[in-house]
Amino acid sequence: MNNNTYLTSYVNHFVETVKQAGVKDVVICPGSRSTPLAYGFAKSEGFEFYRQIDERSAAFFALGIAKAKKSPVVLLCTSGTAAANFFPAIVEAYYARIPLLVITADRPHELREVGAPQAIDQIHLYGKHVKWTVDFPIPEDNEENLSFIERHIQRAITTSKASPMGPVHINVPFREPLLINMEQQDSSVQISKSEVGQLVPSQEFITWYKELLQKEDKGLFIVGDSLSTTEGFWDFARTVQWPVLADPLSNLRSSVPEDCMHLCIDQYDALLKANSFRDNVNPNVVIRFGAQPVSKPLTQFLKACKPNVFIAVDESTIFRDSLHIVTHHAQVEAASLWIPIEEKQCSSYLKDWSNANDISTKHVQAYLEMEEDEGALAATLFEALSDGVDLFASSSMPIRDVDTFYNKTSKNIQLYANRGTNGIDGVVSTALGVHAATKRPGYLLIGDLAFLHDVNGLIVSRFQQTDITIVVMNNDGGGIFSYLPQSTETNYFEHLFGTPTGLEFPHIAAMYDAQYNAVRSKDEFQKVLNEQKVKDIRIIEIFTNRQVNTDTHRKLWDAISKELDSVWKA
Amino acid sequence: MNNNTYLTSYVNHFVETVKQAGVKDVVICPGSRSTPLAYGFAKSEGFEFYRQIDERSAAFFALGIAKAKKSPVVLLCTSGTAAANFFPAIVEAYYARIPLLVITADRPHELREVGAPQAIDQIHLYGKHVKWTVDFPIPEDNEENLSFIERHIQRAITTSKASPMGPVHINVPFREPLLINMEQQDSSVQISKSEVGQLVPSQEFITWYKELLQKEDKGLFIVGDSLSTTEGFWDFARTVQWPVLADPLSNLRSSVPEDCMHLCIDQYDALLKANSFRDNVNPNVVIRFGAQPVSKPLTQFLKACKPNVFIAVDESTIFRDSLHIVTHHAQVEAASLWIPIEEKQCSSYLKDWSNANDISTKHVQAYLEMEEDEGALAATLFEALSDGVDLFASSSMPIRDVDTFYNKTSKNIQLYANRGTNGIDGVVSTALGVHAATKRPGYLLIGDLAFLHDVNGLIVSRFQQTDITIVVMNNDGGGIFSYLPQSTETNYFEHLFGTPTGLEFPHIAAMYDAQYNAVRSKDEFQKVLNEQKVKDIRIIEIFTNRQVNTDTHRKLWDAISKELDSVWKA
Repeated sequence: MNNNTYLTSYVNHFVETVKQAGVKDVVICPGSRSTPLAYGFAKSEGFEFYRQIDERSAAFFALGIAKAKKSPVVLLCTSGTAAANFFPAIVEAYYARIPLLVITADRPHELREVGAPQAIDQIHLYGKHVKWTVDFPIPEDNEENLSFIERHIQRAITTSKASPMGPVHINVPFREPLLINMEQQDSSVQISKSEVGQLVPSQEFITWYKELLQKEDKGLFIVGDSLSTTEGFWDFARTVQWPVLADPLSNLRSSVPEDCMHLCIDQYDALLKANSFRDNVNPNVVIRFGAQPVSKPLTQFLKACKPNVFIAVDESTIFRDSLHIVTHHAQVEAASLWIPIEEKQCSSYLKDWSNANDISTKHVQAYLEMEEDEGALAATLFEALSDGVDLFASSSMPIRDVDTFYNKTSKNIQLYANRGTNGIDGVVSTALGVHAATKRPGYLLIGDLAFLHDVNGLIVSRFQQTDITIVVMNNDGGGIFSYLPQSTETNYFEHLFGTPTGLEFPHIAAMYDAQYNAVRSKDEFQKVLNEQKVKDIRIIEIFTNRQVNTDTHRKLWDAISKELDSVWKA
Repeated sequence: MNNNTYLTSYVNHFVETVKQAGVKDVVICPGSRSTPLAYGFAKSEGFEFYRQIDERSAAFFALGIAKAKKSPVVLLCTSGTAAANFFPAIVEAYYARIPLLVITADRPHELREVGAPQAIDQIHLYGKHVKWTVDFPIPEDNEENLSFIERHIQRAITTSKASPMGPVHINVPFREPLLINMEQQDSSVQISKSEVGQLVPSQEFITWYKELLQKEDKGLFIVGDSLSTTEGFWDFARTVQWPVLADPLSNLRSSVPEDCMHLCIDQYDALLKANSFRDNVNPNVVIRFGAQPVSKPLTQFLKACKPNVFIAVDESTIFRDSLHIVTHHAQVEAASLWIPIEEKQCSSYLKDWSNANDISTKHVQAYLEMEEDEGALAATLFEALSDGVDLFASSSMPIRDVDTFYNKTSKNIQLYANRGTNGIDGVVSTALGVHAATKRPGYLLIGDLAFLHDVNGLIVSRFQQTDITIVVMNNDGGGIFSYLPQSTETNYFEHLFGTPTGLEFPHIAAMYDAQYNAVRSKDEFQKVLNEQKVKDIRIIEIFTNRQVNTDTHRKLWDAISKELDSVWKA
């Protein structure tokens, strides 16, 4: 058996194992050392196959697919700094708990540490930001070799899928020649089955927990990002009748059943800025599912009131409790605690939240009709979204605008963001990855710097069809910094933080054959949103003013506080 | 003393220590957590201050400055994936031995591992790809704190400068509030002095080495990339009279003294493709200074002839010897072995090399007049370069075209490339960084994929003046792969490796207010090169054909081999 024959066997076995383990999507970056696997995946039937030449964007694209599918995606590149370019997305995947099977081709041992080109130390390349990593043996002519890779690929995929999910890394050295035999078929592989366990609580915990739900009226549910499912939540919440503070990324603000609308509190970010209201709604019990919510007022509220019982339900032992107020950590799947109880009545506590929510909603509606700032414009987008689309919110201002202005609805809209580490990098790619997975029309709300940061994300549109509307809030620089104390150092602020680039995005639109509209008012924006989308990519650029945004937001919050004061101080 | 006061003291002390240690350049990426240091560097006099919003490009830009200055550059960012975006350039800096002082702001301990936003595990973030890393203490109100940071900043800078140079990493946690007092002056800091040692050989080694040079006629010097200086080389080589196989990145092909022109062999890549010549010029002794050369024929020649004595002079203990043919490893500065000996005569061995070099040069000249391929077009650029400019060659095809077609000259032209890991990432930024350091007119020769990969590198041009001519060889995809065996799998090749994007670069030019010319022939290219450059950035796009390139290159090499055969087979 020559090298080519058993290299081919190795690759066939590798690819077949990945396929039988249930992985469907493969993102490949062109390169030389990874040739055997690239050809291996390409010739195998049954994979969705994507290419991207910028490895940083490729990794975020894979992250987007995995985020939407909640299932591992293969990400393959050649040796050298190509692999280092994966790092930002891997870090995000680790903290956002997204399963990725990262495969880096490597030089064989004899070309490591000897100054050979494109040979870097790839062992443990991603440090503590992958769940597991393994260095593979050179393809060899023996059964042990095939048995080794089968077991370790399966272990890698199982590890990536086990709670909490996350990225894993396989480093695969190849010797030249790198060409496999494209015709060679190998006797059928049959990998062992694997069952990934579900984390469920003990009976003892459930008894205590159900009693708590049953007897306590001043209880709050807080639901954050990164739940593996939302199915069953409302059937459960309907029986408990506690207010549900739904972070937009919980995806509980959409597809809300009519009879649960009063439970769904979406205005807490504004409400909790009002002292009078805040002081009157201290809960006795808080149960949080998923990640910590985006809202800073909510964070400050929880920190100040320190509920007697605060249960964080989180499938990881990494306690997500930056406030140090959690009293019970339940390391189980959120859905395992969605157990309907004996149906309760609507309490006065729930009514307080629900009424305040209505008051806030009314003010926000008035504000949205009056104002022309980023928030009002973002809300215009949210209003226009139809049933069955995806909305991706960039970090920085967009996710905050979503938090404040994305209202509960019965429409089926899925919300996504990169909140593992809240970076503004790779956003375009992640959004395109989500679309690749869901095939639903995609909308991306993003600032000008984040858009520019990952403009290379658009390259995938050259290799595959897509359908995305990118709404760029262009305030020419880093808008979010205007809210920070450092903005008062005016001498240095604009220079260090504003970073206006003055770059014009119609050029990007022209380059990527995208539909482009510039928008300067809400009316224009509404008109444009009603026009037909005729290209794969549509870019709507909204010109806003950083200073106006801060002023109008503050005005709105003051108005809400004032009306709430009149109710709760009375 | 409140937090703000001693935070300011800490920052002032930090910045002053960096300054007194001799660091002059600071590259900053906007972000929140790094605010204290960003303001600290901004308010201190005497730094060159650069901004870039894409951290990946920022890091490569800093790498370019450090590459040209051979001196450490500060690279600062906020916490989170921003820091992960530095990784590709840090890996390149590690292998290319470029000194960088990477400073990542971090969350304080109480916000680590608790799910706080933008908080990732930044301890040892860059793994084995920095020379040293340290996690700093939170700014505190005591002398020990200031003493600690002073000593460790100095250690970091000394480590980055010690042979072999490389990147170091300081992780600095900050608690809110992040604003320093911009007026506060602190009593003058006076850091201890530090002397970085030079690596020199023992007297015993020098005696043996000089005797070897004196008595051996069939000796070769091979000079590669990453020498800390070339000063003194020709005064030395002139006395030894051995052929000097000068890799373009040795920078020994330019500023060649007239009486050393015959020593400088620049055609070895073509010469060593001819069997007859190759078989007749086996050396007894080879002495290599710097990194392994780019040329594959040279590599194969050395591997085949296995000289009795092969001295690799390399200041690192990482033996750069992928061929496993080095017999003596001298871990010293190259220049410490440039000791003139008693002047020797021109040997017949030198004459053989010199004559063959002339033959090859003649053929190459004829080819350059006849052909219109990438090589001929690249050579047209090299011809046009005037005294006192910098040429940056991208990895992949451009560096190979430089190797083959960049002829020895007395003009002062400095050549640069990223050859630590040979990536095609970050090339635009590194070239712009070199210009920022040297202020000489810059030329960048780059392929279309590499250009696209780091198009964000151009963003720095929005914040500072620059002067660069970017020559993009557009063969619409990865040209280098056409030379590889995998190109024969035509069914899959174009799909996996060709990756034609069809993107048009005039849009990029328009976006960055760059001068743009499209060129389709040598004549057009010459004409365009003679036109005046009126913008900071000039992009000249050359449309070439991948298949033609492979054919014409092979024709040239055959012609040279044929004439050499007629001399050496006779």
